[in-house]
Amino acid sequence: MIITLPNGDQREYADGTAGAEIAASISEGLARVAVGILVDGKAYDLSSPLTHNASVRILTFDDEEGKEIFWHSTAHLMAEALESLYPGVKFGIGPPIEQGFYYDVDLPDGVTLSIDALPAIEEKMRELAKANSTYQRIPMEWKAAVEYFTAKGDEYKLELLEGLKDSEITFYTQGQFTDLCRGTHVPSTGMIKFPKLLSVAGAYWRGDVSRKMLTRIYGISFPKKAQLDEYIRLREEAEKRDHRKIGRDLELFMITPTIGGGLPVWLPKGAVVRRRLEEFIKEELLRRGYVEVITPHIGNLNLYRTSGHYPYYADSQFNPITVEDEEYLLKPMNCPHHHQIYSSKPRSYRDLPLRLAEFGTVYRYEQSGELNGLSRVRGFTQDDAHIYCTQEQLHAELTNAIELTQLVFKTFGMEVKTRLSVRDPHDTTKYAGDPAMWDQAERDIKEVADAMGLDYFIGEGEAAFYGPKFDFIVRDAIGRKWQLGTVQVDYVMPERFGLEYNGADNAKHRPVIIHRAPFGSMERFISILIEHYAGNFPFWLAPVQVSILPIADAHHSFASDLAAELTSMGLRVHADFRNEKISRKIAESEQQKVPFSLVIGAKEIEQDSVALRKHGEGDKGLITVSNLKDLFVTLNVPGAE
Amino acid sequence: MIITLPNGDQREYADGTAGAEIAASISEGLARVAVGILVDGKAYDLSSPLTHNASVRILTFDDEEGKEIFWHSTAHLMAEALESLYPGVKFGIGPPIEQGFYYDVDLPDGVTLSIDALPAIEEKMRELAKANSTYQRIPMEWKAAVEYFTAKGDEYKLELLEGLKDSEITFYTQGQFTDLCRGTHVPSTGMIKFPKLLSVAGAYWRGDVSRKMLTRIYGISFPKKAQLDEYIRLREEAEKRDHRKIGRDLELFMITPTIGGGLPVWLPKGAVVRRRLEEFIKEELLRRGYVEVITPHIGNLNLYRTSGHYPYYADSQFNPITVEDEEYLLKPMNCPHHHQIYSSKPRSYRDLPLRLAEFGTVYRYEQSGELNGLSRVRGFTQDDAHIYCTQEQLHAELTNAIELTQLVFKTFGMEVKTRLSVRDPHDTTKYAGDPAMWDQAERDIKEVADAMGLDYFIGEGEAAFYGPKFDFIVRDAIGRKWQLGTVQVDYVMPERFGLEYNGADNAKHRPVIIHRAPFGSMERFISILIEHYAGNFPFWLAPVQVSILPIADAHHSFASDLAAELTSMGLRVHADFRNEKISRKIAESEQQKVPFSLVIGAKEIEQDSVALRKHGEGDKGLITVSNLKDLFVTLNVPGAE
Repeated sequence: MIITLPNGDQREYADGTAGAEIAASISEGLARVAVGILVDGKAYDLSSPLTHNASVRILTFDDEEGKEIFWHSTAHLMAEALESLYPGVKFGIGPPIEQGFYYDVDLPDGVTLSIDALPAIEEKMRELAKANSTYQRIPMEWKAAVEYFTAKGDEYKLELLEGLKDSEITFYTQGQFTDLCRGTHVPSTGMIKFPKLLSVAGAYWRGDVSRKMLTRIYGISFPKKAQLDEYIRLREEAEKRDHRKIGRDLELFMITPTIGGGLPVWLPKGAVVRRRLEEFIKEELLRRGYVEVITPHIGNLNLYRTSGHYPYYADSQFNPITVEDEEYLLKPMNCPHHHQIYSSKPRSYRDLPLRLAEFGTVYRYEQSGELNGLSRVRGFTQDDAHIYCTQEQLHAELTNAIELTQLVFKTFGMEVKTRLSVRDPHDTTKYAGDPAMWDQAERDIKEVADAMGLDYFIGEGEAAFYGPKFDFIVRDAIGRKWQLGTVQVDYVMPERFGLEYNGADNAKHRPVIIHRAPFGSMERFISILIEHYAGNFPFWLAPVQVSILPIADAHHSFASDLAAELTSMGLRVHADFRNEKISRKIAESEQQKVPFSLVIGAKEIEQDSVALRKHGEGDKGLITVSNLKDLFVTLNVPGAE
Repeated sequence: MIITLPNGDQREYADGTAGAEIAASISEGLARVAVGILVDGKAYDLSSPLTHNASVRILTFDDEEGKEIFWHSTAHLMAEALESLYPGVKFGIGPPIEQGFYYDVDLPDGVTLSIDALPAIEEKMRELAKANSTYQRIPMEWKAAVEYFTAKGDEYKLELLEGLKDSEITFYTQGQFTDLCRGTHVPSTGMIKFPKLLSVAGAYWRGDVSRKMLTRIYGISFPKKAQLDEYIRLREEAEKRDHRKIGRDLELFMITPTIGGGLPVWLPKGAVVRRRLEEFIKEELLRRGYVEVITPHIGNLNLYRTSGHYPYYADSQFNPITVEDEEYLLKPMNCPHHHQIYSSKPRSYRDLPLRLAEFGTVYRYEQSGELNGLSRVRGFTQDDAHIYCTQEQLHAELTNAIELTQLVFKTFGMEVKTRLSVRDPHDTTKYAGDPAMWDQAERDIKEVADAMGLDYFIGEGEAAFYGPKFDFIVRDAIGRKWQLGTVQVDYVMPERFGLEYNGADNAKHRPVIIHRAPFGSMERFISILIEHYAGNFPFWLAPVQVSILPIADAHHSFASDLAAELTSMGLRVHADFRNEKISRKIAESEQQKVPFSLVIGAKEIEQDSVALRKHGEGDKGLITVSNLKDLFVTLNVPGAE
């Protein structure tokens, strides 16, 4: 058989050669770190024999698919440790996740497990890893599988088997532990040198609140110690930057069950940050020919029937409200409202592109267990816009929208990669609209990405149901990746909502719609910004930009004049006229992460100056009021730092 | 008995003297135009004998109470005319309203009534007025009243009588018509010289959609022809200014059943006006030490149970939404959300006053039949704020809030009267909270009104359930009165929400809350502004401020540079580069009520000038670009005209 390697090389191997042998034939080093093999895009165990011509890639921990395999195998290793420490434990599901893995387990009666128990389990995992047991793939008959778990008394696996009657069943065994599992796994436990268990939580079996609550144990693992150390360092750094904590300390927002879970309330300082971001975007929108609209927060349910969002997405929506025999939905998106504006009057090709922008607050249902600060909420505000354009205008409009998105990320010093999210080639049934339109739209986004020279990759199956899209994945200051912002092409909604325009040929045509939101959700974006900056917002964005700190009463008049002057420049100033020691005033200004503190005493006044302190950097010496104002004008601009 | 007149004069009359005689004793002229008498604040027929010492005022059509009597009597006159023209007609209720009166009638089978039938009814009314029949008050036994209407076969009056079993029953008869009625009425039909019937509508009996739909006939009347003529002129003027029509013509907003009745959608040009108004207020708020907050559009139902708005105001609220066993309400007001912010941390007297402002969109249920453009909606945005202060700060904060309200009305050139809305002295049961607090609060607002020298009057029974308030009644450009803006004192919610602060005495105290909204509802305010200005917004507020109209292609480059220059000054510019005749470009700019059109041809370019046209005033001659920019800077300020 002919095997094609990632670099294009083609090699001949005997039929039945396993991935491990192919890896070894490429290089011994690669074979040592290989965790699996990708055969025509699908992952297999290294021990699986290959039987026909294929393109392959040897997977290591450095690959996303490799991490998945590594962490999935670690979940099995943890299960083995648990079974050894807590005989009789039963197992739900134990998948790899974005960072690590978890396993949901039902502990024997009377056993509860806190975070304190984790080191012992970890220790047992290391011991079992040393044994270097092989992960063995064992194809099973469905009946035999049922018999096995009946004997073991694991009702969870039996319930899972009920759903697998028509599927191929495989077990995986390593050491003393056997699991119902599709794979893929690393060759043996010895690779998993540095496991780390992270936390314990409750989780309903199958996410169903009416079922039993199991114990979910989260963990992660690495092949190298340096990787684990770096992970722990980043995790600690992330904890320090947790936007929920900083949001509370800096009084940016609050979330209270009295009002409702997942419904953030912007406190005065947080509202300043949000408005400043909105102004930043609004100025850019004005420059780019957008017009603002304002639409209500509810809409007739029929709008969402037309769009196809209801009833298919009913699970992620609040229940409808009945009014005089009509049903209204808290709007889960702004699109249908904007489409109504488009179709409120006849449109001509001369009116296009029409770019309707709205900071639209939308409401979506999330289970209370899923809610998390500003990053996972039930109500959020999109910096939304819909661009209605002709096919001829599409490239230019996409380019314009992407440029705006890039400007946003550049302003915050975030690296960005672009994902072209296209259909899942293996299941095209989940997409609405004409496949020919889809082909066209996918060609469009690729052409634009190429023409713009974007650093992009293809995300199969990541498209919206109505069209392909650009998604932007940014790296924050501590290297974490976030999917932010989106630019989507939509040929489906114009059909569903019957949108048209009169062309130059005097015939009716359908416009194309671009959905776009550079920030995405203001709430989530700000949660990321808080963590990105660790609360140390740049000058232009800080809730309070300047603290004015007179040393004694005699300096209040000068301080108060300066405060008025800076305020009239549009700066956000806090003047601290309390009868407190200057050291305490400075400390509090530092605590509040105010970018600049201006200390004012007799010496400063004499020279029409202030003693300038920069947050986190301390005293920067005397600066004249005139130079200070120049400095602030320079810094008070999005992107300045 | 001693009778005290409005000027303080006291006169002695024999017991049993009627109002008519008192009027005659004051002046013959007054007696001729008198329609009723106010005895200790309550209106009576002029024929009623007075039996004890009292303060009285003779009412004429010029008094609000006099108009009410006059129009109520006209409703009876119309009923008499209807009974004469449509024998067998039955009568629901026929009250005076703010402008005129209506009567709901059930016409005989097969008779329908359109606006075309009104002149004949009016003619009959004039005929009956000429007969100058006396309005006779006839006290009745309840049983006799029931017998009368049973004989007449009027099930509506019988149903009304069911609710009056324990009340004093009176009939009023004039000419051939007898009605169940409490009065008060003018002496005789001859006074009603100039009746005018206005419109016909359907109205459910008792406002209940499950009951029969009756025919509602609206009308008005005046004692003098000049008054009727003026009314008709104003009505025509108001129709031309109808904000629904202008809103459509200028593309300011739309309301569509597809999204939902009463849910305005701000189109780009309307959104500009709304944002400009918001910015205007925001700048004032910043100057006055308010801070902005942003709260969600739904809230846990318990918030409104605590406030007392639920279930008592459930009729004016949307149905709750159920989420995981909790109930949420589309917020009908922002107050409870702000109170949660107040109580989110311990407050000290040093933190007060805390002034939380929000442009909060709230949702209230209105019957679809009540909805009307932007002025009666189901979703609207309040320019809301809550000021939490100490008792000592109350006067200063009220003064500040009222000054802001006055500034707003002054900016739009609207005359304002202030109503001090206090409890209904005859029914204090409908108010929450301690009467001593109410006494205090009513004293507070009166003291502030006096200290500020406000032009005010007292509105008994107009208080909110939680406290007295200042209401502002403005006159628009065509003399119509609107209740706009409110400043309310609230001692009740601090109790209900358990709000407190640490005083200088280190003890816990309750803050006082001021609720205030200068615009009230942005939607309603803008509906009034549109009509006030007849769509001719002042320069600073106009959706498009300047049209740039090049005469030919050769002038595009100059025009385009000028457009860019003015845009960079923050002006809203429309440059019309179409290949159209200049006369058409000008006409369209006039139609869109753009304040200034700049016509640009060879002559203008040569002199670095434009030909300036002012909307509605035509050509103002050449103006240099430099002078033009100065002019625009001067005009682009709230209040400039």
